[in-house]
Amino acid sequence: MKPKEKICVFPGSFDPITSGHVDVVKRSLPLFDRVVVAIGINSQKKYLFSLEQRLNWLEEVFKDEPKVEIGRFEGLTVKYCKEIGARYLLRGLRNASDFDYEKTISQLNQIIGEDLETIFLISRPEFSHISSTIVREIMKAKGDATPFLPDQIRIN
Amino acid sequence: MKPKEKICVFPGSFDPITSGHVDVVKRSLPLFDRVVVAIGINSQKKYLFSLEQRLNWLEEVFKDEPKVEIGRFEGLTVKYCKEIGARYLLRGLRNASDFDYEKTISQLNQIIGEDLETIFLISRPEFSHISSTIVREIMKAKGDATPFLPDQIRIN
Amino acid sequence: MKPKEKICVFPGSFDPITSGHVDVVKRSLPLFDRVVVAIGINSQKKYLFSLEQRLNWLEEVFKDEPKVEIGRFEGLTVKYCKEIGARYLLRGLRNASDFDYEKTISQLNQIIGEDLETIFLISRPEFSHISSTIVREIMKAKGDATPFLPDQIRIN
Amino acid sequence: MKPKEKICVFPGSFDPITSGHVDVVKRSLPLFDRVVVAIGINSQKKYLFSLEQRLNWLEEVFKDEPKVEIGRFEGLTVKYCKEIGARYLLRGLRNASDFDYEKTISQLNQIIGEDLETIFLISRPEFSHISSTIVREIMKAKGDATPFLPDQIRIN
Amino acid sequence: MKPKEKICVFPGSFDPITSGHVDVVKRSLPLFDRVVVAIGINSQKKYLFSLEQRLNWLEEVFKDEPKVEIGRFEGLTVKYCKEIGARYLLRGLRNASDFDYEKTISQLNQIIGEDLETIFLISRPEFSHISSTIVREIMKAKGDATPFLPDQIRIN
Amino acid sequence: MKPKEKICVFPGSFDPITSGHVDVVKRSLPLFDRVVVAIGINSQKKYLFSLEQRLNWLEEVFKDEPKVEIGRFEGLTVKYCKEIGARYLLRGLRNASDFDYEKTISQLNQIIGEDLETIFLISRPEFSHISSTIVREIMKAKGDATPFLPDQIRIN
Repeated sequence: MKPKEKICVFPGSFDPITSGHVDVVKRSLPLFDRVVVAIGINSQKKYLFSLEQRLNWLEEVFKDEPKVEIGRFEGLTVKYCKEIGARYLLRGLRNASDFDYEKTISQLNQIIGEDLETIFLISRPEFSHISSTIVREIMKAKGDATPFLPDQIRIN
Repeated sequence: MKPKEKICVFPGSFDPITSGHVDVVKRSLPLFDRVVVAIGINSQKKYLFSLEQRLNWLEEVFKDEPKVEIGRFEGLTVKYCKEIGARYLLRGLRNASDFDYEKTISQLNQIIGEDLETIFLISRPEFSHISSTIVREIMKAKGDATPFLPDQIRIN
Repeated sequence: MKPKEKICVFPGSFDPITSGHVDVVKRSLPLFDRVVVAIGINSQKKYLFSLEQRLNWLEEVFKDEPKVEIGRFEGLTVKYCKEIGARYLLRGLRNASDFDYEKTISQLNQIIGEDLETIFLISRPEFSHISSTIVREIMKAKGDATPFLPDQIRIN
Repeated sequence: MKPKEKICVFPGSFDPITSGHVDVVKRSLPLFDRVVVAIGINSQKKYLFSLEQRLNWLEEVFKDEPKVEIGRFEGLTVKYCKEIGARYLLRGLRNASDFDYEKTISQLNQIIGEDLETIFLISRPEFSHISSTIVREIMKAKGDATPFLPDQIRIN
Repeated sequence: MKPKEKICVFPGSFDPITSGHVDVVKRSLPLFDRVVVAIGINSQKKYLFSLEQRLNWLEEVFKDEPKVEIGRFEGLTVKYCKEIGARYLLRGLRNASDFDYEKTISQLNQIIGEDLETIFLISRPEFSHISSTIVREIMKAKGDATPFLPDQIRIN
Repeated sequence: MKPKEKICVFPGSFDPITSGHVDVVKRSLPLFDRVVVAIGINSQKKYLFSLEQRLNWLEEVFKDEPKVEIGRFEGLTVKYCKEIGARYLLRGLRNASDFDYEKTISQLNQIIGEDLETIFLISRPEFSHISSTIVREIMKAKGDATPFLPDQIRIN
């Protein structure tokens, strides 16, 4: 790892990854040398899809992007960033309701993460109504969520 | 059912129905031929009042409104609307915090519901601080929630 | 005018009318018997386009919609609605910043307009970033605003 | 208790108390004769720290403030206020997301609390990103939360 | 002036004073020894009513409230507060749109005003849609604004 | 200009530049090869300080930052970016009120600017209450704005 390499972490549960996530990662690629899409594991949280399934989808979705790596971590995001030498976090903002939450988290990460910097991209209009929560609701109700998922994810 | 009949669904948990819900339904009546006040049943959610109790209250509250029908459904709201031929959803907006959530849901329903249209009314000032959540909190704490409930609901 | 005719006013400056306005009007048409797209004239406000130009564009844009009429008024919107027998106002909501303003206006119109009811539709994702203000900014800076305008408007 | 004594309740879970809470209480002291920092006990909620631990911390943090008392209550906050003769509630506002929730609660307390008045202070910039929720997250992940806690709280 | 006297300033343009302003002032009276309702004069701003008219209305509206005084000032609010020995500012919050603006101002006043403290009350539901701006709009359009004005203001 | 050089524009009026602006620019520097702090000139807008004064201050403030250049432009920001080969815009977000406006602008710039990407940083807590507007208000009222200005700006 070169000292000046620009590494960015895009953390999430990705339960499942959506087209909105993919768009944010792809738009960020020209800015960084490496973008690590990393699943944060919280043992007290229930997920709809297994960790293995979610990691497989991430590998599949980004297999043609040489700058993207897939990762996983437990505990604080800032610790993981330090371990892998990442100085940047990447987050997508969809609406004003997201904002105050993300502001709080980014200010904390700056304090406890020794100036870990969070870079925000605003979702494109066609993705601003998509979230993993909504995709799960559609799936639980036996609806068709494929319009909100990357092509590589096939759920039947 | 005539082809041009304007049917609207007002979905919710109604745990319990509040004066705010009743006001939104009554204001919407001139716009539609039928308004179906429908309880969405989610088997993973806990309710304070039984489905029977909630349905009874709805029947009681709207018994003098010939345009109102009471319904129930499981699964996606958009499927229920299609089954009963409803092209409209009705929602009340109380404050800006409601907005981003409702925007996301309405845009999704338009996509997965084949142009199901959501009509919004803004709560009147005297009802904008009323929600089922707050009514349940008052009840759990043995407070008097009758100022926030329709006259037909008597809880002691 | 039949007593039960459902007349709705969609008021604005339309300086100029955008694709977002057109979408809201078209989505509202099944609900009403007549929708009056009406320019509110405020003698103390500066407009980029003349009243005649703006009225011509409205006529052109909606010439194939039999339910749409074009109007104009000075003074309070509620007075105009009363004069033409409209019991409904139509408004599009784009984002949470719009909300508190529209809430205030709609609650006032209910009080001073004798229960004039405001019906809200939320902008579709592809139109939620379009406003007349932004279109004017693009035009003033000699940019190309045609992606945000109805096909009938040609400005060079 | 003199009839005109100005008593204020600052209610919360204080799981744990943060530097932000302490700042709001201290800023409010010149306004009141007594400020009761009171833990609301909800038997259905899980806490990270025991009631005894949280009460001890409160006693410790405010032991040099003669106007501050520590309290506890079950049920509605308005009932507790009435019992101890408090006519005021104190709340801190950190961001716009807090606002609509607090507005609803304060309007309800005015109705069911016979004009119990809620006084709001806006958090200072250096405390606006601190909440008990965030402190608990840092602790669960074995991070160092001391920058967000009063000096009297030592957790190892 | 006794050293401990609690003096509060309620600043504004009051162009004109509304029922909402009056309600906030009256609710604040038990907290303070004196509340100074003060017109801030900005020579670059246009007002609908003259300074004399606005001051007369304030005198009239509060003539039976011994704790209320009427004032006027030019320049920064914090300077005026210092001159008259006021340690508190009073502000009403109507909605989330008000919040971020008021937060900014109150944090600045704390810095440049040597800990001048701003006390916020949230508007009651029946007043949260009232503002001087809206009253002026109604008046300019020859509408009837009396429902939003204190009884002492008669405009014809 | 090398084809892969990462050039970013930070546009504004800078009337005057504040400590908040400086912080956002400095935090962005590791991400880019060049950051152009550029004054957008709008002939219809009144400024408190002359263009020369504002440019001088920018030169002074960033004279020790080799990656920073000072620029100026008229017309659309996207045109200026294209002319100088910048693929990125930089914006600071202070609060949720900023968000919806910035979202609209960034989505437009993506459309009319051929994928010009806007990068957002959230203001640090100590700068989130600072804006040029507020600084101007303090100056007009003869208050001391130096706590909100970079050291290089001396106004008496």
